[in-house]
Amino acid sequence: MKKTGISLLFIILSLSLFAQDVYQAERASWLEKAEQAKPALMETICKPLYLVRSVQDPDAFQGWRTEKSEEMDALYNISFKEKKEVIADFGKHITGYYSFFLKTTYRTQDAPLRIKFTFAEVPAELNTPFDPYPGTLSRAWLQDEIVTITQVDQEITIPRRLSFRYVKIELLGYSPDFDFRFADMTCKAVSSAQDIQVPLAATASEEIKEINRVSLETLKECMQTVYEDGPKRDMRLWIGDLYLESLANTYSFKNHDLTKRCLYLLAGLASTDGRLHANVFENPEPHPQYESHCLDYSLLYNVTLLEYLKATGDKETAEDLWPVVTNQVKEALGFVNDKYMFDPYKKEGFLWLFFDWRDGLDRNVAIQGLMVYALNSSYELAKMLGKEKEVKEWPEIAKKMAKAARSELYDSKQGVFVSGPDNQVSYLSQVWMILSGVASPAEGKKALNTVFWMPDAVYPGAPYAYHYLIEAMIKAGMNDQAKEYLVTYWGGMVKKGADTFWEVYDPNNEYLSPYNFFPVNSYCHAWSCTPVYFIQKYPEIFQQ
Amino acid sequence: MKKTGISLLFIILSLSLFAQDVYQAERASWLEKAEQAKPALMETICKPLYLVRSVQDPDAFQGWRTEKSEEMDALYNISFKEKKEVIADFGKHITGYYSFFLKTTYRTQDAPLRIKFTFAEVPAELNTPFDPYPGTLSRAWLQDEIVTITQVDQEITIPRRLSFRYVKIELLGYSPDFDFRFADMTCKAVSSAQDIQVPLAATASEEIKEINRVSLETLKECMQTVYEDGPKRDMRLWIGDLYLESLANTYSFKNHDLTKRCLYLLAGLASTDGRLHANVFENPEPHPQYESHCLDYSLLYNVTLLEYLKATGDKETAEDLWPVVTNQVKEALGFVNDKYMFDPYKKEGFLWLFFDWRDGLDRNVAIQGLMVYALNSSYELAKMLGKEKEVKEWPEIAKKMAKAARSELYDSKQGVFVSGPDNQVSYLSQVWMILSGVASPAEGKKALNTVFWMPDAVYPGAPYAYHYLIEAMIKAGMNDQAKEYLVTYWGGMVKKGADTFWEVYDPNNEYLSPYNFFPVNSYCHAWSCTPVYFIQKYPEIFQQ
Repeated sequence: MKKTGISLLFIILSLSLFAQDVYQAERASWLEKAEQAKPALMETICKPLYLVRSVQDPDAFQGWRTEKSEEMDALYNISFKEKKEVIADFGKHITGYYSFFLKTTYRTQDAPLRIKFTFAEVPAELNTPFDPYPGTLSRAWLQDEIVTITQVDQEITIPRRLSFRYVKIELLGYSPDFDFRFADMTCKAVSSAQDIQVPLAATASEEIKEINRVSLETLKECMQTVYEDGPKRDMRLWIGDLYLESLANTYSFKNHDLTKRCLYLLAGLASTDGRLHANVFENPEPHPQYESHCLDYSLLYNVTLLEYLKATGDKETAEDLWPVVTNQVKEALGFVNDKYMFDPYKKEGFLWLFFDWRDGLDRNVAIQGLMVYALNSSYELAKMLGKEKEVKEWPEIAKKMAKAARSELYDSKQGVFVSGPDNQVSYLSQVWMILSGVASPAEGKKALNTVFWMPDAVYPGAPYAYHYLIEAMIKAGMNDQAKEYLVTYWGGMVKKGADTFWEVYDPNNEYLSPYNFFPVNSYCHAWSCTPVYFIQKYPEIFQQ
Repeated sequence: MKKTGISLLFIILSLSLFAQDVYQAERASWLEKAEQAKPALMETICKPLYLVRSVQDPDAFQGWRTEKSEEMDALYNISFKEKKEVIADFGKHITGYYSFFLKTTYRTQDAPLRIKFTFAEVPAELNTPFDPYPGTLSRAWLQDEIVTITQVDQEITIPRRLSFRYVKIELLGYSPDFDFRFADMTCKAVSSAQDIQVPLAATASEEIKEINRVSLETLKECMQTVYEDGPKRDMRLWIGDLYLESLANTYSFKNHDLTKRCLYLLAGLASTDGRLHANVFENPEPHPQYESHCLDYSLLYNVTLLEYLKATGDKETAEDLWPVVTNQVKEALGFVNDKYMFDPYKKEGFLWLFFDWRDGLDRNVAIQGLMVYALNSSYELAKMLGKEKEVKEWPEIAKKMAKAARSELYDSKQGVFVSGPDNQVSYLSQVWMILSGVASPAEGKKALNTVFWMPDAVYPGAPYAYHYLIEAMIKAGMNDQAKEYLVTYWGGMVKKGADTFWEVYDPNNEYLSPYNFFPVNSYCHAWSCTPVYFIQKYPEIFQQ
C-alpha cells in the first residue's frame, strides 16, 4: 500500500510540533524541487556469461575465487533436478531485478518447487555460511532468498532489488513426478548513470586504466534515484558519500541533476533547528534517519554545494540552499571555545564525528581542520553568491582557528600534528591540517612522510579516508606518492579481483568488517569511487 | 507473465498430433462451458484469536497440542525484537492469503527485516523439523516462507495461497537501530461455498453435530474454483474427490455450477482416445496431469454425472457429456475377459487402480464390483437421457460380471469375497460386492461382520475408502453399525482436535503418511468430507 501525500504534511507537522521550523518557508519547495530532479533509471538487461565453481585459494581475496566451469547451456539444456546446484557469473557487478524462467521438460508440474538463490558481490559471500549470523547489522541485508515457485513456465522476478555479480542456485524442493530446467535468467540492471567512456591519455598506465574503469563502475552502480552509499547495503543517501560521488560525477557522468536532487532532499529533510541529517531515505516517502546528525558530514554539505555551483553555475540552487549553509556553520561554531579550538564537550548531548571507520581514531585534529576548510569553502560560496557581507566574520574565525590549531596541535619536534589527550598520531590528522591550510605544503609533506614511517601511526581504515589522504598529498605536492598510493590502494583491490570498489579495504586484513561479519560489508561503495575524480582532475599526475 | 489463449490451441493441437481426437467436435465448447461456470470466490477477512504455545503431550494427536498463552495484544503491543517468536491461532482452518502489517515503533527503519512464517493445519506441523526432508512429495508443499521485508509500515502479503489454522512467526534478521511491532495480521479466506447452516434434527447427538460441522468446513475449504482435493497440498481437481465432494455439496451448499464446471473441465481435458485424466490443473491454463489415467476414477465420473443429473435435472449438460460416459465404459470393458471377469493384464501397459491408500490392497474384487456398479449407473443415466438403445448391452454385461464375481470371488465357507492370487480378505472387497449388488444385503452384512473380526483383514487406510464402507453398510442394512463407524472414525478425528477432516487417518497410527513424512499429509481433504452427505441423506440413521 502506497502512502499518500499526507505523509509529507505529517513530517512537516511533526518536525514543527515542538519548535519553530527554521526552514518553514522553504521546506516544501525544496522537497518539490528534489522530486522534480529525480532521474529516470536507465534499464539494461544483463545475462550471465557462464557457470563457475568456487575454488578455495589462500592467495585469493578472502580465500575464495571462482573459475569458469561450464557454458550457460550446461544449465539451460539439463534437468535442474540433475544439476541441483550451480553458480552463474554475470561477469560484472550489477544492481537490479533478477528474473528467471523455468520450463517443464517432463510431464506436468504437480507440485511447487523450492529454490534458494544467494546473490554475491564477491566469491567469499558464496562460501561463508550466513547462519548463525554474527554480524551487528541486520541479517536481512545478506542476499539469500528462498523462493516457492507455484507455477513454472513463466517468468518469475525476485521482488527485492539485488546487487551482485554471482548467483548461487540451490534446489531445495521438487516433485518426483515432473522435471524442469532453467530456460533463462536475466537481471534488469538499473542506474541513473548513462554508459560513457571517460577518455584517458595514451600515456596512462594499464593499472590506471583499470582503476579508472572500476571507479566508474562503482559510481554508476551507486547512482540510482539518489547517490546511494551502497546498492547492496544501506541503499540510501549519506552526505559523506554524496560529496565524493558528486566530485567523481563532475569528472565522469556529469549527471548534475542528481547532485541537485540530493542537495534539495537533504535540505528538505533537515531538522527544524537547521541541522542536516547525515542520511535520508526515499521510500515510502522521503524521510530522514532518526536524529542522525554527523557534524563533519554537515560541514561537507557546504563544500558539496560549493563544488556543485562551480561545476554547474547553477546560482539559483545555491541561493535557495544558502540558509542550510549558514545553519551548518552556525551549528559547528557552537563547539568552538574562547581559544578558537573545537571542543566536543562545549555543547551538551551526543556529538557524532565520523571521518573514518577506524577504531580508536582521535578526531580532534581532523574536526579542527575540517572546520577551517569548511569555513573557507562556505565563504567562497558566499562570495560567489554576493553574500559575503552576511558572513564577513567567517574568514577571521577560520584564520584564528588555523592559528590555534598550529599552536595547540603541532608537535614541532616530531613534525606532526597530534590529537587528543594521548597525542595520537594519525594519517587523518595530518590530512586535515594540510587540506585546511594549517600546514604549509612543505610541512604537510614532512608530516605525512613522517607518519608513513611510524609503525604505530593510525592509518586509514576505509577508502573514504584514503580519498582525503590522496587529496592532501596532492595539495602537499607529493604527486608521485599520491599516484603510488592510489595505485597501491585502489589498484590493490583491482588486483584482488574487485569489479567495484569496496566499502572497507585494509590491505593487511581482508576480513575487516565494522559489522563483525565481512560478508555484510558493501563491496560496491560510493565513497570508494573517487579515483576517476583524481585521474581526470589531475591528468598530469595520474595519466602520465 | 500470463499466457494467451494460444495455449488452448496448443493443447488441442498437441493432443491431436498423433491420433484423431474423439472429442474434436466438443472439446473447445466443453472448456468454454467450464470457464463460464467458474464460480466467483467469496472472500472473508479472518483474524487470529490469540497466541498459543505448543505443548508436547503423548495423549495429543501426533504428540502435540496448543494452549492459549496470551491475547493478540501481547503481540501487537510489544516490540517484535523482544518477542522474537510467536504462534498465532486463527481458531479454525482457513484457506487464503495471509497479510501482515509491521509498524515502526522506535526511530527509522534502516535495514530490511527477515522473518520466517510457518503455516500449519495441525500442531505437530509446527514442531516437526522440515529439514532434512524425508518425504517423497515436493518439500515445497510445506508452508514455511522466509520473507525479506524491505519496507515496513505497509501491508505485506505472502504471494502463495496458504491453508492453515496456526502461523508460527520467527524473527531471523533485524537492525539494532530501530524497533517495530506487528500491528495487524489477517487472512483473506477464499471459498466458492457460501456460509450456510445445515439444519439437524433436535435429536441429533452432539457428536453428530460436531462431525457435521467439521464435514461442512472441510468441504467449504476444498471448494475453490474447482473442487480441490486438498487446499494445502495438491490443490487440484481429482475425479475421486469430485465424486465425493459433489455428493456432499448436494446435501449442503448446493453449488451445482461448481460440479458442472468440474465435469466439463475433465471432459475438455480428456485424452484424444477418450479416456479421462484422473486429475487436472487450472493454471496457467487448464491442462491435465500428464497421462494420469485411473480406471476406478474414470468410472466414477459416470456415477458423478448421474448424481449431478438427479440433483439438478440439467439434461443439457448430461447430454453434452454423454460421449465421455460411453468412452469410459468402453475403456473399462476392454479389460473384461471371456469369463466376464476383470483382467488387469488383458491390455498392455500400466493400469492404475486406486480405491484406497493402503499398501498391499488387492484391488481385483473392488474393480469387478465397481464395474458392475458403474455399468448400472451409466445405464440409468442412459435411460434418463433416452439413450438406452445405444447401450442396450450394458445391463446384460453387468449381470454377467456380477454372476462371474459371485462364482469366482465368493468364499462361501468363510462368507467373504476374496481377492487376487492370495485370496486376500479386505474390507473394500466386501464393500464393492455390496455396492454392486453382487452380494445381497444379508450376505453383505455377514461378510462385513466377518471381516470386522478377522485380525488380518485389510482395513481401509483413508477416509476415502471409509466413505464407501459406510455406504455399503447402509446398503446392507447395518444402520446402527454404520452410525457407530462414522462416529468412531470421523468422530475420532474430531475428538483429536480436527478442524477439518484429514486425508489420511488410521486410528492405529497417527503418523501414517503415504509420503513418508506426516507433516506433508493434507489435513483438510475433500475425500474426507462426506459425513454431511450421510447425515443429511439418512437422517433416520444419523440424526436419531
